[in-house]
Amino acid sequence: LHLLPYITFCLLTGGKSLLLSPCLVDQSELSYLERDVLTSRMQMVEKENQQLRGNYAEERGNNSDCSHRSMVEKCELIHVACVCAGHNTSRDVITLVKSILFHRKNPLHFHFITDAVAHKILAPLFQSWLVPSLQVSFYDADNLKPEVAWVPNKHYSGIYGLMKLTLTKALPTDLAKVIVLDTDITFATDIAELWAVFRKFSDKQAIGLVENQSDWYLGNLWKNHKPWPALGRGFNTGVILLLLDRLRRIDWEQMWRLTAERELMSMLSTSLADQDIFNAVIKQNPFLVHQLPCFWNVQLSDHTRSEQCYTEVSDLKVIHWNSPKKLRVKNKHVEFFRNLYLTFLEYDGNLLRRELFGCPSQPSSESLRLQSALEELDEDDQCYEFRRERITVHRVHLYFLQYEYTPTEDDADVTLVAQLSMDRLQMLEAICKHWEGPISLALYMSDAEAQQFLRYGQASEVLKNRKNVGYHVVYKEGQFYPVNLLRNIALRHVNTPYVFLADVDFLPMYGLYSYLRKSITQLDMSHTKKALVVPAFETLRYRLSFPKSKAELLSMLDMGTLYTFRYHVWTKGHAPTNYAKWRTATTPYKVEWECDFEPYVVVRRDCPEYDQRFVGFGWNKVSHIIELDAQEYDLVILPNAFMIHMPHAPSFDISKFRSSSSYRYCLSMLKEEFHQDLSRKYGAAALKYLTAERNI
Amino acid sequence: LHLLPYITFCLLTGGKSLLLSPCLVDQSELSYLERDVLTSRMQMVEKENQQLRGNYAEERGNNSDCSHRSMVEKCELIHVACVCAGHNTSRDVITLVKSILFHRKNPLHFHFITDAVAHKILAPLFQSWLVPSLQVSFYDADNLKPEVAWVPNKHYSGIYGLMKLTLTKALPTDLAKVIVLDTDITFATDIAELWAVFRKFSDKQAIGLVENQSDWYLGNLWKNHKPWPALGRGFNTGVILLLLDRLRRIDWEQMWRLTAERELMSMLSTSLADQDIFNAVIKQNPFLVHQLPCFWNVQLSDHTRSEQCYTEVSDLKVIHWNSPKKLRVKNKHVEFFRNLYLTFLEYDGNLLRRELFGCPSQPSSESLRLQSALEELDEDDQCYEFRRERITVHRVHLYFLQYEYTPTEDDADVTLVAQLSMDRLQMLEAICKHWEGPISLALYMSDAEAQQFLRYGQASEVLKNRKNVGYHVVYKEGQFYPVNLLRNIALRHVNTPYVFLADVDFLPMYGLYSYLRKSITQLDMSHTKKALVVPAFETLRYRLSFPKSKAELLSMLDMGTLYTFRYHVWTKGHAPTNYAKWRTATTPYKVEWECDFEPYVVVRRDCPEYDQRFVGFGWNKVSHIIELDAQEYDLVILPNAFMIHMPHAPSFDISKFRSSSSYRYCLSMLKEEFHQDLSRKYGAAALKYLTAERNI
Repeated sequence: LHLLPYITFCLLTGGKSLLLSPCLVDQSELSYLERDVLTSRMQMVEKENQQLRGNYAEERGNNSDCSHRSMVEKCELIHVACVCAGHNTSRDVITLVKSILFHRKNPLHFHFITDAVAHKILAPLFQSWLVPSLQVSFYDADNLKPEVAWVPNKHYSGIYGLMKLTLTKALPTDLAKVIVLDTDITFATDIAELWAVFRKFSDKQAIGLVENQSDWYLGNLWKNHKPWPALGRGFNTGVILLLLDRLRRIDWEQMWRLTAERELMSMLSTSLADQDIFNAVIKQNPFLVHQLPCFWNVQLSDHTRSEQCYTEVSDLKVIHWNSPKKLRVKNKHVEFFRNLYLTFLEYDGNLLRRELFGCPSQPSSESLRLQSALEELDEDDQCYEFRRERITVHRVHLYFLQYEYTPTEDDADVTLVAQLSMDRLQMLEAICKHWEGPISLALYMSDAEAQQFLRYGQASEVLKNRKNVGYHVVYKEGQFYPVNLLRNIALRHVNTPYVFLADVDFLPMYGLYSYLRKSITQLDMSHTKKALVVPAFETLRYRLSFPKSKAELLSMLDMGTLYTFRYHVWTKGHAPTNYAKWRTATTPYKVEWECDFEPYVVVRRDCPEYDQRFVGFGWNKVSHIIELDAQEYDLVILPNAFMIHMPHAPSFDISKFRSSSSYRYCLSMLKEEFHQDLSRKYGAAALKYLTAERNI
Repeated sequence: LHLLPYITFCLLTGGKSLLLSPCLVDQSELSYLERDVLTSRMQMVEKENQQLRGNYAEERGNNSDCSHRSMVEKCELIHVACVCAGHNTSRDVITLVKSILFHRKNPLHFHFITDAVAHKILAPLFQSWLVPSLQVSFYDADNLKPEVAWVPNKHYSGIYGLMKLTLTKALPTDLAKVIVLDTDITFATDIAELWAVFRKFSDKQAIGLVENQSDWYLGNLWKNHKPWPALGRGFNTGVILLLLDRLRRIDWEQMWRLTAERELMSMLSTSLADQDIFNAVIKQNPFLVHQLPCFWNVQLSDHTRSEQCYTEVSDLKVIHWNSPKKLRVKNKHVEFFRNLYLTFLEYDGNLLRRELFGCPSQPSSESLRLQSALEELDEDDQCYEFRRERITVHRVHLYFLQYEYTPTEDDADVTLVAQLSMDRLQMLEAICKHWEGPISLALYMSDAEAQQFLRYGQASEVLKNRKNVGYHVVYKEGQFYPVNLLRNIALRHVNTPYVFLADVDFLPMYGLYSYLRKSITQLDMSHTKKALVVPAFETLRYRLSFPKSKAELLSMLDMGTLYTFRYHVWTKGHAPTNYAKWRTATTPYKVEWECDFEPYVVVRRDCPEYDQRFVGFGWNKVSHIIELDAQEYDLVILPNAFMIHMPHAPSFDISKFRSSSSYRYCLSMLKEEFHQDLSRKYGAAALKYLTAERNI
């Protein structure tokens, strides 16, 4: 029985001087003793540890990361596990992932225990991220719930807070070790250094942990404060090295269950979720724990002793934002930590799509496909940038903000679909006021802009009270605004049977949502192929008093306060709507397709997608309407629906188009190719579109 | 005489195994020998070196940075020197500086050898950056020109390319050593590691260099290619460790001069500037050089052998973009390097304003002032954010793009002054078409947006042909758009005697520039205190056919195509202009100040500055006009001048103002304080402004 930790020394020649200094604390086999005895002895241990931490810090300050790094094999695969549930945590975990990827030099395998929401967000995110030498696995938290649901837990993390206890069962049985991280962690160093610490575990140790930096487990925070049992200050479970195979061998599952059951007889519930149970098990089986130096989990809650840790070292490894206040926590050095966090929060995730040096990765089939598509392109082609765009994979973060949707009973629910970038953000509130139904939006943004949008969305009274808006962030890349890719992403993530394919600079008339649902039912949309057209108007004035009815709209048209859409510049786009007929129409009427028609339509959500070759300005909607017509959709004008285009400064893409002959040339090339594809797909019938265009 | 390098070993215990491996190549004293003899022996050395590089790389791959880091004292001050001239290089060097600051843990002192342009840009940039533990010194390159002007140089860097030769003279005599860097360098590691290499210099070594990774000095690139003499492949001078005191002792100045003079008899000129001369000196005095491992200067020009370097190591330290193609260089791993570069290019420089851990800095007087101002603020004050803004120091990059200005002979030249953020960028071309005179713009942007703007400015035919536009980037920070700070920055950096204080969403009438210059002379502006008012109009239409004359403008007013500015919402702002009188006026007329008057005026550039307490929306121009009136400026309306406001979507700041009662409350607080300050400054006379406001 060794009570005091023994010390291994490492010999280092730093130039000429010979340093002899302690390397790491190893705590060896401790048999079970009564609590009272242990407590007093642990105080000794703690004191000793404090001294060691000082020494260690000194050594690390001088010596950076040589000892750890040297113990990781080049290209060794590192495993990381995280429990992740809900929209907000799925956003937070990305910052952790970025901070790990930024510093890493090894292949990584992330294991995510997720609820349905987190899986819906993270799976497509990683799929579109295309980070080489990165594997991602998902495990359904629902399957694990029975394992922990019986433990009453008062912590805000709820049942997910307990799931780290189940990892020996949840993760593949052949996975021997894993680093387990909370989502509110930021790495300031290469995770391989932490991985290397596994090799320092003694024969019996199975759990690597940093001491708790708050006084919680000392039980003296307030009168009658009675925490779960722990060794001294206890340990924090935000960062865990888990030696899974050893834990499985000693039947960890049984071990934590029995401990939890026994303690719950007196404690009634956990306060700090898994952490209480980990600490209770360790108190009973101290030999299990391998204590990590404090800098592997610098805990930034209020009133912590973390400052004692980080003022000792010049190099911090891992920051843990474990206060409910998160970034607003008061702390002398909080500015430093916040800057580190903000660095990764706003870091362009596309920059992490880089190959590792000297670790050949097995390229995914997706990246092979891209590679060969890229090689087929001719860099000297005048339209190279356009063609390049078509094979660009944009990183996508679906459901960026909280989202809830309950299907309606009428089976005729309809989602407004649109796309935008930062410069149209101010339209969102207005659209929400005009359309109470579900909305699916694709937002084209940089990582930094997404954070600006988040702040905007959380501050806006209008937006934060609407849960039925799906915000899908598509990260910026390349030269052009990928309008049709954005439309398709918004379209694919619709949860209603019908969609209203709109644009973000239009305001629907008040009541359009319920009128469309009625029309969908009346026109038997579910059994027929129809595209219902919402006639489009425009105003050139910012301060428009929005018409309350068709009658009011008509009189504003007569007064010249409103125009039919693009009346001044591009009449053809909406001419087939037949505005003259619409003025007096009281029932829906069918119209024929004509060249360059680009109305806003309501269709079943199984409609054809937009053609993504059209980027920036030009032909992006026209091509879609052609495809609808080719698939024999009836174009039906709604007599009592309208939408109004609100004025805005011209987009950059339009200016580009107007000024560049090369842009126009490439657009015509794309059109040509589109027509060829149409003929291949729809045969001779599709010739009519080409003929129509040539006749202009 | 040692010809072969000797090897120092370092002993490392990585866990249990004992590693014995070479640490670093030291080349010791080499007396002068005939070239032919040397060449063959150097080939041996080179071969040996190659082997060593391999070994070294292996060791480094395993062992990261322990040996170097251990040799730098905590908080040791590190000196870095750069030669920097012109607008473009002043932009480039910032990316280098960011990459160094990002990784550093030590105090730094930058020594910049600058021309007038670079000094004008970098001095205020660092002054406003407020990075703790960072000293910056400037040395006038003009004073050094005589030292090198006699050397004919064909390299694109021109005379500045030779200035690294003069550093023993240029830098303070008590500066013992310095790291010298080209501006096209990116650091991927802590610069202290490089600094530590100084301690490995043997007794005679004075210059640390990485071998050249191109074949240039082998002289076999093309027929009759005759490079300057060099040892083997020669050395690259993009990264130099310069032991200044030793060089001074051996009379480096004399040494390089004599070598250059002798070689120039046959070579006529240098091709690679200082690098040719460094190599010629080293060829004669090989004992001077301490060869650095290749990863301290990975040279990314085409056809280099740099790949041999970086595929050996998992860790790269310094990237050198030494191809004229810069980022477009072809290279298998260019994606990796580009991402590293882009990381710092777009990195938010404000995040680098953090204290070093454990290295107490002597705070500057500026930062002490800020600290105490900050402490005086009450965080619970409802208007805390407004008051906080007033003491925020925004980082400023003046003359972000190329700028040239030649004063006119009439002494009546006038600069258009305005400010904007990204969402108004599209106005710039139009303004340039309407105003051919000088323009001074403050642009409120993030680091990433500044790069977008750079691409835009370099692509626009209109903008890139205009050299008389000063673009001053003010980096974003805080909640509000600091409109008056921006105006003041644009105003301060005007090089003409007069300014036209405009807004970016207005287009001046064609010919306004020459009309203003005439009026300035006619109205004797240099001897009188006058503010000439340019009457303001507005259109609500994007596609305005801009009026060519006052007559045309008047008829458009009558037709309702144009309005007087803010006719619909805020008539008071321009009422005193007296538009009715203006219609028929043919000579300038004086008007009296009235409450809330906010005309656009032409004044001498020594006019009062804008009051920076007003941020976001509200009272930012009104307060300035009050101050002009308080200083007894005559307000004179110009009968044949006009400007027209172009429509745009409302700014976020306006929406904030409209929706927030707290915003309105704080604005009224600020107004109150402004009035108090006015009374203090101008006495009882200033009461009229308060009275006028209370009477509304």
